[in-house]
Amino acid sequence: MSVERLPSNDPYAGTGLPELGLRNYWYPVLAGWRLGRKPRSVKLLGEDIVLFRDRGKLYALSDRCPHRGARLSQGKCLYPGTGTLSCPYHGWTFSGETGRCVAKLMEGPDAPLPRQAVVKSYPVRELRGAIWLFVGDIEAPPLEDDVPECLTATADWHGFSTWRTYRCNWRIMKDNLCHDLHAPFVHRHAPELMFQPVFPFASRIAAMPLDEGNGLGYAARDGINSADYPGLGKFPPPHETWYRFLKPTGRGREIDTKSAAVVKYGVKYRQSSLMPGATFIGRPNGNYFALRWVTPIDAESCYYHSWSLFRRRGWWRTFFDRLFWVFWVSWVHDWVFSDQDKRILEAVIPGPEALSRSDMGVVAWRRYAVEHARQRARAGTAPDNVAASQPSAAE
Amino acid sequence: MSVERLPSNDPYAGTGLPELGLRNYWYPVLAGWRLGRKPRSVKLLGEDIVLFRDRGKLYALSDRCPHRGARLSQGKCLYPGTGTLSCPYHGWTFSGETGRCVAKLMEGPDAPLPRQAVVKSYPVRELRGAIWLFVGDIEAPPLEDDVPECLTATADWHGFSTWRTYRCNWRIMKDNLCHDLHAPFVHRHAPELMFQPVFPFASRIAAMPLDEGNGLGYAARDGINSADYPGLGKFPPPHETWYRFLKPTGRGREIDTKSAAVVKYGVKYRQSSLMPGATFIGRPNGNYFALRWVTPIDAESCYYHSWSLFRRRGWWRTFFDRLFWVFWVSWVHDWVFSDQDKRILEAVIPGPEALSRSDMGVVAWRRYAVEHARQRARAGTAPDNVAASQPSAAE
Amino acid sequence: MSVERLPSNDPYAGTGLPELGLRNYWYPVLAGWRLGRKPRSVKLLGEDIVLFRDRGKLYALSDRCPHRGARLSQGKCLYPGTGTLSCPYHGWTFSGETGRCVAKLMEGPDAPLPRQAVVKSYPVRELRGAIWLFVGDIEAPPLEDDVPECLTATADWHGFSTWRTYRCNWRIMKDNLCHDLHAPFVHRHAPELMFQPVFPFASRIAAMPLDEGNGLGYAARDGINSADYPGLGKFPPPHETWYRFLKPTGRGREIDTKSAAVVKYGVKYRQSSLMPGATFIGRPNGNYFALRWVTPIDAESCYYHSWSLFRRRGWWRTFFDRLFWVFWVSWVHDWVFSDQDKRILEAVIPGPEALSRSDMGVVAWRRYAVEHARQRARAGTAPDNVAASQPSAAE
Repeated sequence: MSVERLPSNDPYAGTGLPELGLRNYWYPVLAGWRLGRKPRSVKLLGEDIVLFRDRGKLYALSDRCPHRGARLSQGKCLYPGTGTLSCPYHGWTFSGETGRCVAKLMEGPDAPLPRQAVVKSYPVRELRGAIWLFVGDIEAPPLEDDVPECLTATADWHGFSTWRTYRCNWRIMKDNLCHDLHAPFVHRHAPELMFQPVFPFASRIAAMPLDEGNGLGYAARDGINSADYPGLGKFPPPHETWYRFLKPTGRGREIDTKSAAVVKYGVKYRQSSLMPGATFIGRPNGNYFALRWVTPIDAESCYYHSWSLFRRRGWWRTFFDRLFWVFWVSWVHDWVFSDQDKRILEAVIPGPEALSRSDMGVVAWRRYAVEHARQRARAGTAPDNVAASQPSAAE
Repeated sequence: MSVERLPSNDPYAGTGLPELGLRNYWYPVLAGWRLGRKPRSVKLLGEDIVLFRDRGKLYALSDRCPHRGARLSQGKCLYPGTGTLSCPYHGWTFSGETGRCVAKLMEGPDAPLPRQAVVKSYPVRELRGAIWLFVGDIEAPPLEDDVPECLTATADWHGFSTWRTYRCNWRIMKDNLCHDLHAPFVHRHAPELMFQPVFPFASRIAAMPLDEGNGLGYAARDGINSADYPGLGKFPPPHETWYRFLKPTGRGREIDTKSAAVVKYGVKYRQSSLMPGATFIGRPNGNYFALRWVTPIDAESCYYHSWSLFRRRGWWRTFFDRLFWVFWVSWVHDWVFSDQDKRILEAVIPGPEALSRSDMGVVAWRRYAVEHARQRARAGTAPDNVAASQPSAAE
Repeated sequence: MSVERLPSNDPYAGTGLPELGLRNYWYPVLAGWRLGRKPRSVKLLGEDIVLFRDRGKLYALSDRCPHRGARLSQGKCLYPGTGTLSCPYHGWTFSGETGRCVAKLMEGPDAPLPRQAVVKSYPVRELRGAIWLFVGDIEAPPLEDDVPECLTATADWHGFSTWRTYRCNWRIMKDNLCHDLHAPFVHRHAPELMFQPVFPFASRIAAMPLDEGNGLGYAARDGINSADYPGLGKFPPPHETWYRFLKPTGRGREIDTKSAAVVKYGVKYRQSSLMPGATFIGRPNGNYFALRWVTPIDAESCYYHSWSLFRRRGWWRTFFDRLFWVFWVSWVHDWVFSDQDKRILEAVIPGPEALSRSDMGVVAWRRYAVEHARQRARAGTAPDNVAASQPSAAE
């Protein structure tokens, strides 16, 4: 295993998941409209990267000029249309495509441009309102192959996205999204849920590898909405119960296998974990999905990009869905839920854990991710064998 | 000696006093009224602790949930009257009394509650307006046995307290309270003292173990109020002397052995250092004492809780004492003195010291504290023998 | 080589230049008028130093009191006229001249004053509006021998100075001043230059040791103001060129050997690097020089003191020069140029460099500085031999 994947001094090292994130995957890093005419610096998996556009085309290079270490993100596209970016310090000019230095402006056109005068260039794409970067050591697969179909099929699905930064390691954030039954507890007072019965909990969670080979699907059985604890009383306690007069929404039920959307898209689970750190959650009827993607920034923080995706069912329904998102889902679901989690996750004190029944989804995810992480093939070893021989550290 | 008591990389390691404070003692950590219905996090001796009240009873637990590391201080007492606190993340519920997990709310009433599902619980008390915690590895003695009688005897003594946080290690703060003659110098311009002659200095300080076995008493002899330094001039210099027209208050004189209060309470010294880092200073007549307690927070900061205690001598006198404190002592003594010290102590650059005649009280305190520190008995060794055989690192 | 000169964990260690600066040199540390009646703390080469004045005389001592570590800069000159400073904590009083403790105010006049009761005293001077300190282990040479003549000859030269702090290591800042051709690029949009053709670049830079033995002189040949880069276009690009209608000022031309000032002062180069980290740049006619001095503070920051020096040529001309500085040079040159550099330098990510043709001046400076750095003579080795035998780490 490479050095990046098992750092020492890392309280989560025991999970086998690397502190700085899984390499060789696509990650969303920035809302597309936030990258205008000026280059912009982003950080992911601990790497400083500059993003820039030239005549509509998107480029991503390492942000550090190899000459004297200045930041390319402070530079300019001096030659529009050439896909190049010039360093702010001495004008070394790099091809956005290859990362090669194509001119050293201060040294004249005859200056030698040795092979070492190069910065790393990153595969970059724009999809569904976000800029995506691929960080790793292998050739990038098509982005479309790495994300759920309803993200790419813009003709069939419409949607919105929100994003924010969490001041915690990406693993703490991703663990939060593994059907670990924190939701019935943490979010029970959120406006969307406070008038409904508490979500089913004490469910038996099963986690099954997806047929697509890119994650785990979760199924829950036998949930309860209320229970009596000896010596304490009921949960939820009576003073939290009397105002819960609404009927429950679909939460707690599994996917509706007869729904038209479910049949058409072959969806099997209402909730799944996708490599390298995303979560995909839908309504039972399959007409709505939330995709939540955790992008590691560095050891102490992560970026979180979240899409709400609605299946197009006629212009009137689409119009209603959009209103519904703007006036309800956006704040009630995306912001309030996220705020409630953020407060807890950013205060977590890493250390030994006492994993329990409700953490089955977390344990399954950690093991799956460690075993299936893409990696650079080593000499004489096929990539698949490497993955298979890895210890499953989460057990 | 345990690992905590002699950390490396600690510029004060030579004193033998542990960077994070002496374990196995009671410490004040918070004014009682500041803990309301919401749990509250405090830190002492480097440990994160949550305090909470339930139906008037006070509890203290380790602030880190053993399940997934969330902070219990963000949780709630969901079941008032049961003395329990529930984690904000998945509702693990802990007994404030024992620290045992008594329910995992999200896992149903039949969830196993293994022995490992426990947090450390701390002895906690409220006394004289402060919440006190005992941090250590032995059974806590009664708080009353560990503090001066005039703190516990509320029928005979009334008082006030102030507190603040110092951004320096606790040892720097405690050294400042060891009759080291900084007071005649640092505080000579404070409103309380600026019109009086400068305190006696160049005193011969004697430090004697208290009969109670919990500290050192100081006695000073042969102080001077002024001296002539060859090549420099007088101290205090003439431009600081002409306006000192008041008579000196009791400062500089030792305890008045004929005073009624002194006789009654068997007080022997006007100033003493008490384990684990307190200072007790009175007026010669024994009717007023200040108790100043230094509580280590972490390596870089400490908490300071200070009481002004007046002996009750009829309601009229009590009324006057309270007015006197509110309009005079509180700001002139507690705040101004403390500010003058704070500025210096927080700027101290730790490193080698050149201890001198005026540091006799400091040296005696460090040696006494190292030799008499309570510690967990080791197999085959009586606690007393352990203490006696320790090297006195301060010499 | 001493420990200070080759620290590990230092990304610039390969240059051979010490992270905290070259010892045994004078450095400007503070504008003189900023040191009033109160002592003031400064930091250079990682050392905390207190500056104070007594009856017009200037003193510099280590800022840490050896007694208990308090900061002397919080103390006072209690005995004006004696050149002493008293510690704020217990009144240990130190001679500004020798650093010896001459009195322990709290311990009486008969207190022993052992040899160890001493702080390091630093050679200190005031010249041309700045306070200069000498940090090192050898005897300080006269300040006048270490700075250009036009700084000391106040009868012949008048001037102004500005200063600021950079949040980068001193080497990054000094590299910026080594005729590395960043100026034609970085500053081409500054108000002073935006209407002129771009400075000549792609010059062949020669760096020659100065006769005085205290630095390198630079000479540039064959510069161009514009060039055509295949696949990109011209630099400067057309949209940056059309408004450059002014004639170039002297920049780009070398020193005018027939100018009266140049003949009189024996100036040989328009630009030179002076030990231990200064840069001296003039106009071809030799009537104006800018001296820019980089003073290391600690590993992460440096202080920058910059003089504009004009040769006195009659009162009318002097009056005009001063107006010219106040209304033009000060902001256009000193502030705008410095701001443009500051933004880039403070964002530099240290690491491996790809030094190139334009860095000849940088490489020559690093090598020269390492080879000629003053150092304490070692037993049995003459100082000159030591310098000569050092490896030139910049190659």
